[in-house]
Amino acid sequence: MTTDRHDTIRAVAFTSAALRLLDQRRLPHEEVHIDCTSAAEVAAAIRDLVVRGAPAIGIAAAWGVVLEAQRLRAARQTVDASALDPVLRQLNAARPTAVNLAWALARMRAVLARGGADDPVAALNAEAQAIQDEDLAANRRMGELGAALFGERTGVLTHCNTGSLATAGFGTALGVIRAAHIGGKVAQVYAGETRPWQQGARLTMWELMRDRIPAKLVADSAAAHLMKTGAVQWVVVGADRIAANGDTANKIGTYQLAISARHHGVKFMVVAPSSTVDMDTPDGDHIEIELRSPGELFGLGGQRTVVEGADAWNPVFDVTPAGLIDALVTERGVIERPDAQAMRAAFGSGAATR
Amino acid sequence: MTTDRHDTIRAVAFTSAALRLLDQRRLPHEEVHIDCTSAAEVAAAIRDLVVRGAPAIGIAAAWGVVLEAQRLRAARQTVDASALDPVLRQLNAARPTAVNLAWALARMRAVLARGGADDPVAALNAEAQAIQDEDLAANRRMGELGAALFGERTGVLTHCNTGSLATAGFGTALGVIRAAHIGGKVAQVYAGETRPWQQGARLTMWELMRDRIPAKLVADSAAAHLMKTGAVQWVVVGADRIAANGDTANKIGTYQLAISARHHGVKFMVVAPSSTVDMDTPDGDHIEIELRSPGELFGLGGQRTVVEGADAWNPVFDVTPAGLIDALVTERGVIERPDAQAMRAAFGSGAATR
Repeated sequence: MTTDRHDTIRAVAFTSAALRLLDQRRLPHEEVHIDCTSAAEVAAAIRDLVVRGAPAIGIAAAWGVVLEAQRLRAARQTVDASALDPVLRQLNAARPTAVNLAWALARMRAVLARGGADDPVAALNAEAQAIQDEDLAANRRMGELGAALFGERTGVLTHCNTGSLATAGFGTALGVIRAAHIGGKVAQVYAGETRPWQQGARLTMWELMRDRIPAKLVADSAAAHLMKTGAVQWVVVGADRIAANGDTANKIGTYQLAISARHHGVKFMVVAPSSTVDMDTPDGDHIEIELRSPGELFGLGGQRTVVEGADAWNPVFDVTPAGLIDALVTERGVIERPDAQAMRAAFGSGAATR
Repeated sequence: MTTDRHDTIRAVAFTSAALRLLDQRRLPHEEVHIDCTSAAEVAAAIRDLVVRGAPAIGIAAAWGVVLEAQRLRAARQTVDASALDPVLRQLNAARPTAVNLAWALARMRAVLARGGADDPVAALNAEAQAIQDEDLAANRRMGELGAALFGERTGVLTHCNTGSLATAGFGTALGVIRAAHIGGKVAQVYAGETRPWQQGARLTMWELMRDRIPAKLVADSAAAHLMKTGAVQWVVVGADRIAANGDTANKIGTYQLAISARHHGVKFMVVAPSSTVDMDTPDGDHIEIELRSPGELFGLGGQRTVVEGADAWNPVFDVTPAGLIDALVTERGVIERPDAQAMRAAFGSGAATR
């Protein structure tokens, strides 16, 4: 993979002997890599959040399948769907809610189902590499498409982490910001800290500073006040699932940003690969919102800040209605003001995307 | 002061020998009191955030003046404006931005200016007690007025800490919630954690649980999603300064809540004593927004979460335009949809309130 000085971070890298993962739990304090030499180690790394971000998880899992195929061959066992099935299941269960994980493993399974390869290990290796390369290419393409929407000297607000750490590289929403920065269009990036996990504070700020993109951290609650000052022209976010009418599930807080953006006439952009589009889900009301442990809100960095016995309501995602989205960017192109008709034209019916 | 089981917390209590302060820095983990026996100790306690909340700070400062008057009398020195001037200045400088601090000290100074008291120490003592009693009475009155606006089984979202800890007792916005709870009208309270200082997480949750009011903590960024679920009918917040047209400065994040509330048809209430109204400030554009150290966003509880060298934008307050406020509650009454005309009718001209 080529990198340039504005795209220097790789969270997932395969060598012939191991999958090397940047341990995201230890960022931004330490840059430590973990070498996984078996599929079980890859599954554990996904489960334990060594690697995170839906595309990055899918890529890591694909390489986990390759590691197991290599092990089988070294043990002079048959490399086929039946032999790999336990590992495919183990990897798929590592984080059951991540869409791209299942999607990537389905591609690996399809290679085995096709059969007929002289060298199934090489075929699996090629497919994992393709998944990784296609993700990076999609991110580069989305970066160009999204950046083209920016005016000169644009202020941008982003949320959560959608960068190289979450993908094969470059990122989705952060890829648009990177591309716009390379094109000289970015005046200032603001990163919302993204409670409770602080992905914006811990990861996005680290990525932006590594790539020397001008960045300021803001409290999630300061976004509307920031917009009122006129400092931002675009809010740019990623997506976890996009329904058939354009309604978009993303990290909690995204919806609030979209409402404030519309209130201030600030533009709102969603950036995600087409694999995030789910044409079988008609609208946002049909997207289940995961509620996680109240304990995630009771502190930060191991320091408890809330009285014992307290309760909390901790939804991880929210849904931004399509009507609040000015531009939906996938590698296939830009949809302005997405709705069911435009989505159908771009992505076909549900059956076609499965 | 009478308390009941729904109003058990007193952050500031004067005995003849000392001002006893609940150390709010150590909440919710420990309930530790600090006895201040001199005005200098009171000033230090205000500066070091042992006591916080504009009304509570004003009350504490008034008692600081009493402690100094007692010291002068014990040393057989004259108790007058001249002798007390250094202490009045010291207390006023402890937190220069808190409006109620200057207001309370001006009242103490006026007692000395009037002169003629047989016992100036007793006169100062009576004035400090009056400031404290009036604050509690105002909060009780605002509680009744605000709670009367609630329907049956109301869900409420609040922000920051506006409770007994911030006042003589009962609280402003939290006083409305307490009164509504006593009246059986509260189905559920949601407290926004209030980054970066976490007053909602640390203090409001502690107060609500102490008074057995059903409470859940939410991330500041989850507010809009919460409103969309239909779980809240009112957002109730305090104020740091209310301009002559009703524009209201309050803790950062308040503005965003007001925008989301209007978007969802959720009602938005501001609760503050009339001393918070500043008729000399025409509108919110004339309220200076304090920017504090970026470092406040770099961690929580001493644990750094952001890469070294990072920058942040950290405004402490924002301004909610009067047009987003459904009800402004002071001890003088309720103003629905406040504007310059209604404010003038209720609070007179700027000169009259000075």
